[in-house]
Amino acid sequence: MAFPAVEEPPPPPAVLLIRRRLDAAFDAALRQRYRVLDFSASGEPLQDFLANAAALPDPPRAAVVVGGFAARVDAAFLDVAPSLAFVFSTGAGVDHIDLRECARRGVAVANSGTVYSADVADHAVGMLIDVLRRVSAAERFVRGGLWPAAQGEYPLGTKLGGKSVGIIGLGNIGSLIAKRLEAFGCVIYYNSRKQKDSVSYKYFSSVHDLAAESDVLVVACALNKDTRHIVNKDVLEALGKDGIIINISRGANVDEKELIRALKEGRITGAGLDVFENEPKVPAELFSMDNVVMMNHVAVFTSESRSHVLDTTISNLEAFFSWEPLLTLVLPW
Amino acid sequence: MAFPAVEEPPPPPAVLLIRRRLDAAFDAALRQRYRVLDFSASGEPLQDFLANAAALPDPPRAAVVVGGFAARVDAAFLDVAPSLAFVFSTGAGVDHIDLRECARRGVAVANSGTVYSADVADHAVGMLIDVLRRVSAAERFVRGGLWPAAQGEYPLGTKLGGKSVGIIGLGNIGSLIAKRLEAFGCVIYYNSRKQKDSVSYKYFSSVHDLAAESDVLVVACALNKDTRHIVNKDVLEALGKDGIIINISRGANVDEKELIRALKEGRITGAGLDVFENEPKVPAELFSMDNVVMMNHVAVFTSESRSHVLDTTISNLEAFFSWEPLLTLVLPW
Repeated sequence: MAFPAVEEPPPPPAVLLIRRRLDAAFDAALRQRYRVLDFSASGEPLQDFLANAAALPDPPRAAVVVGGFAARVDAAFLDVAPSLAFVFSTGAGVDHIDLRECARRGVAVANSGTVYSADVADHAVGMLIDVLRRVSAAERFVRGGLWPAAQGEYPLGTKLGGKSVGIIGLGNIGSLIAKRLEAFGCVIYYNSRKQKDSVSYKYFSSVHDLAAESDVLVVACALNKDTRHIVNKDVLEALGKDGIIINISRGANVDEKELIRALKEGRITGAGLDVFENEPKVPAELFSMDNVVMMNHVAVFTSESRSHVLDTTISNLEAFFSWEPLLTLVLPW
Repeated sequence: MAFPAVEEPPPPPAVLLIRRRLDAAFDAALRQRYRVLDFSASGEPLQDFLANAAALPDPPRAAVVVGGFAARVDAAFLDVAPSLAFVFSTGAGVDHIDLRECARRGVAVANSGTVYSADVADHAVGMLIDVLRRVSAAERFVRGGLWPAAQGEYPLGTKLGGKSVGIIGLGNIGSLIAKRLEAFGCVIYYNSRKQKDSVSYKYFSSVHDLAAESDVLVVACALNKDTRHIVNKDVLEALGKDGIIINISRGANVDEKELIRALKEGRITGAGLDVFENEPKVPAELFSMDNVVMMNHVAVFTSESRSHVLDTTISNLEAFFSWEPLLTLVLPW
């Protein structure tokens, strides 16, 4: 009687990790389960890195893309990574992934789902209070030691309650922003591709008309060819000189040049910007504006969401490698 | 037949205006209705100013006190202003008015009522988001042009949802803070002199126990001899190293020296402070702390509340001078 041969467990599958920077905890968790091919550690140009990975005896079938800075997953990327069947983006937005090219090649795409939604919504509200109530400006004033010597009247802020807030994009994030602002006594309006039956907020099919009726415009839509510069010169004009822009989506949803011009000329009142058109470059003209609150794309930056997104990444990879349905699917539609 | 004599309208009554600074709109509105005796314009020491007013043929029966900086309305004040029968404080707090002395002398006191409550609640939430999500710190980082050259991992913030927030003082302001934070998914606890039947939030009769159960402690109580340093070393200890203090009430409700020591030694995580023990003096040690958000007592500073408080001031003065009931009475109880 022959004993059955002891089978070696199969080697862990290869996963491309496309990121700009280290995240020790995230990377260690991936490495525990997969053979990680790490772009940032390779020191190679992206095309070489991908070509080398593709030439391996067991080329990677999955890629984890962290943030939009590291690389665009487009035709050029996919051409040198023909073994890829799955791209997971740790971000909420997938504007750095060419969904059309992925669809054409049968590459599945998943993202972080709603992991970040509450944090982004909180951040949007925080920025809005900051702009209206001059929080960061007062902070600079006090921290600079200017309070004791202050003369004359200190500039007043503006009340949040009663403001009409127009939300562009009433998805998961936009809805959470609306829910929070209702508790402050704001009136919610929105624009999206289609009117939603599930909410009673007033719908505007045109962003221009939404802006004309709103005190505050919150940009919470995905970035794609239809939404690029959705807040343009005309929309800023419609928003008017008491208007405020909050952008927690993508910088390119707003025409930044026109926004800066409107702020400089007092054609709108202020802005809260977590995102910019050419990150990490922020137009220097903004640095001297007290009516602008600006941040380094940190609306998703909490330790809780960081740990949650790690779980989501692993769960999706495990589903993919065991031929189970992906959990937070973007593609196939 | 004699024509009836044409009566001169009576001269407008005298009103003491005790304030440190001009507010053109407010002062003009008062002057339209009353003979305003303006302390800050007099250039006199307070005691001389009051004595001179008292020596007038028609001495003032009412005083409007703006803010707590200008003067304390105490026995010394009231001794030289024996004609006073009514003190109106434009602030929400009346800690600069000795209520016991006023009561003893039969001087009525009114304040701004709930004019500021929503603005202060908004400001408290804004400061909490700011501390948790490092808004002002990120603002300094971007405004200083540091983003493009940033190396390594940027520090993460902390999620607001799920945090337990202990509110000290569930009056009008505290209740509005609670309502707002519920919309963010926070769990509300509170301490006050008595448990309230009208709310379902968990009540703690001891501030120490409240702190021990809370992630965030919001100080929203009036300042009086029972609440001075209500947040002391023991309470900070109970709050613990992940704890955050938000103070939008009065600086002296918190033992500032102990707070700074706890922040320096990492025994609590951060603080949002709109008020300080010796305003406008802010302890310089705070200026270098990235985990502290500090402001110049501006939680009530909106143009809406400014105009609303003017209405409340005039309405109370009109009620007083026409022997009608005061609208936002503090005294007599």
